[in-house]
Amino acid sequence: MSRECFMQFNASATDGKARRGEMTFPRGTVQTPTFMPVGTYGTVKGMLPRDIVEIGAEMILGNTFHLMLRPGTEVIKEHGDLHDFTQWQGPILTDSGGFQVFSLGDMRKISEEGVKFQSPIDGSPVFIDPETSMQVQADLGSDVVMIFDECTPYPATEKEAEDSMQLSLRWAQRSKDAHSDNPSALFGIVQGGIDVNMRTESAQRTAELNFDGYGIGGLSVGETRDEMVPALTAAVAHLPVNRPRYLMGVGDPASLVEAVNLGVDQFDCVLQTRLGRHGTALTSTGRVNLKRAEFVLSDEPIDTQCSCMVCRRHSRGYIRHLFQVGEPTASRLVSMHNVAWTIELMNQMRRAIVDGSFASLREEILAVWGNAMGQAAS
Amino acid sequence: MSRECFMQFNASATDGKARRGEMTFPRGTVQTPTFMPVGTYGTVKGMLPRDIVEIGAEMILGNTFHLMLRPGTEVIKEHGDLHDFTQWQGPILTDSGGFQVFSLGDMRKISEEGVKFQSPIDGSPVFIDPETSMQVQADLGSDVVMIFDECTPYPATEKEAEDSMQLSLRWAQRSKDAHSDNPSALFGIVQGGIDVNMRTESAQRTAELNFDGYGIGGLSVGETRDEMVPALTAAVAHLPVNRPRYLMGVGDPASLVEAVNLGVDQFDCVLQTRLGRHGTALTSTGRVNLKRAEFVLSDEPIDTQCSCMVCRRHSRGYIRHLFQVGEPTASRLVSMHNVAWTIELMNQMRRAIVDGSFASLREEILAVWGNAMGQAAS
Repeated sequence: MSRECFMQFNASATDGKARRGEMTFPRGTVQTPTFMPVGTYGTVKGMLPRDIVEIGAEMILGNTFHLMLRPGTEVIKEHGDLHDFTQWQGPILTDSGGFQVFSLGDMRKISEEGVKFQSPIDGSPVFIDPETSMQVQADLGSDVVMIFDECTPYPATEKEAEDSMQLSLRWAQRSKDAHSDNPSALFGIVQGGIDVNMRTESAQRTAELNFDGYGIGGLSVGETRDEMVPALTAAVAHLPVNRPRYLMGVGDPASLVEAVNLGVDQFDCVLQTRLGRHGTALTSTGRVNLKRAEFVLSDEPIDTQCSCMVCRRHSRGYIRHLFQVGEPTASRLVSMHNVAWTIELMNQMRRAIVDGSFASLREEILAVWGNAMGQAAS
Repeated sequence: MSRECFMQFNASATDGKARRGEMTFPRGTVQTPTFMPVGTYGTVKGMLPRDIVEIGAEMILGNTFHLMLRPGTEVIKEHGDLHDFTQWQGPILTDSGGFQVFSLGDMRKISEEGVKFQSPIDGSPVFIDPETSMQVQADLGSDVVMIFDECTPYPATEKEAEDSMQLSLRWAQRSKDAHSDNPSALFGIVQGGIDVNMRTESAQRTAELNFDGYGIGGLSVGETRDEMVPALTAAVAHLPVNRPRYLMGVGDPASLVEAVNLGVDQFDCVLQTRLGRHGTALTSTGRVNLKRAEFVLSDEPIDTQCSCMVCRRHSRGYIRHLFQVGEPTASRLVSMHNVAWTIELMNQMRRAIVDGSFASLREEILAVWGNAMGQAAS
């Protein structure tokens, strides 16, 4: 790219294919591999920006599709950008809106130009294309912008997957052209379903377009981990080593460690907050449903191995009580723990990569989580 | 009282009848006049103990009735006491449970002994009397225990009000006897409805029992402020000057300033969090409903005169957006602001008492709030 990108990426240590690095932005440094909490509507569900800082998050994800519908970029621009609107001052990665648009099913119509859809809020017609998506992400002040691509359906015929990939590549080029004046990082997206050859070709041809980083999309959409790993391996093998790799929408502990093991640097997932809202905690011994009667008298923390602000202060018995009486703070506490716990898991992986002990950490994590979430969860 | 009470109270300045003081406890000092947020179920609705610390609360109220039903004292005792269970380390005042029990209507039966009622949670029979209430409050580790009294109904005949007061006085003595080994403060409660003579007699006879402080109950139950003020004036006039006076369940801005003007030191109210849940903020210009469309583009804080953590960071437009998308954080932000705003109002009153400018502050507050809540709100 002729333009100067304000993001720097440097991988300082490796252990096998796993790598330890740093992404630096004017708004802060992100240690990789990293987990990004999802701030769909300008806040991570149930949390305030300061909670997100406190649990150690360094970068969050914003959903372009949701924010362009509500509150709309005109409201956000009145405040400056998404950082100013939400008062999250660290780096933000925004998705392109593509994934949500394609999830609308019959409510959207795809053409070479872009996608027409009906707003799920008020039914009004909306059009989004690569140029619109780049404009919205620029308005949001995103630090990492994702190209607008088509998300290959699963399952798909070979012809469907091929056509989808070709359209995505054309849209990738249009995204890049539209982004040319923006110093924010622009990430391409590798598609190709679970077909290793398609993944290889998509990775190669996306890499030829020379992006600042690479998302790997279309995984964790229903395939098993045994289907995911070969597709991910093929994609990573054909991406440049000096650029960050971001596995989109994946965040269960076993998938995180498997993807880091293959050389992935970045993740996001709503699993942590969705489980949290329902009272299920991620712990060093697996999932724990805190609503269970057995915890009524417990004065133990959610996870005795965890040092997050929730585990330092509150007991399983207290949190169970808050669920019993319908206090929304209960969901907030478990969501905060789950995100903090996942961030600490990434910390452990980073330390293990530097120490050269990643293989044994991976075994430990898979011993607890390998069967608990055999399916890559979204 | 022959026992040593661990609470000290000292009123260091007065301005008219309004007084500026301090209550000191082993767990901390409370500046008076003070506003206590209500932590019904072991947390102020929508907030964490650290939020409550951050907004400047020095003391909170716990509801004995709610906590004895859920989670029950056996769960709380497993953690130590209510401070340990909730991780709120400052002083706690607990009500006696009486007010909630009497609110059950047909579901409860009053005798000389105490009150039988059906649990609204599971219909099981529960019995509460002065001795039970003292035991539960001792188990909770309450720093200020309230006597178990009967709450005089409104409206009431003269005979009903008289009988109720006599029963309350007998129960006050039983409460005191049951509390004799507990160094926590024990507050009597003045009843008597809106009848000035009854209030006078109740205050005199309660004061004769020599408590560590005095609650004034049964106001803010439907009467107008013009009915409340004479009753409150009569009660305060017959309470000892060297003991704190606590107007129970009252917290709208106009009633706060009127009661401080009459010499009241302590307040609690759920108004702040109830309004907050519905998007209504207390501000220096009156109530503001943040859900209104006019705030969609606003990058102003809830109240430009407020320096609370919410007003320092977040805009009306952002908070309105969070309500629009159904994010529970929206209620939390407005609740936090409302409680912080009320605590700052008490700060202003304390400063004005020391400065001798309370009368003009009172006029300013009544100019904004005198008509907005003509009815003493609960």
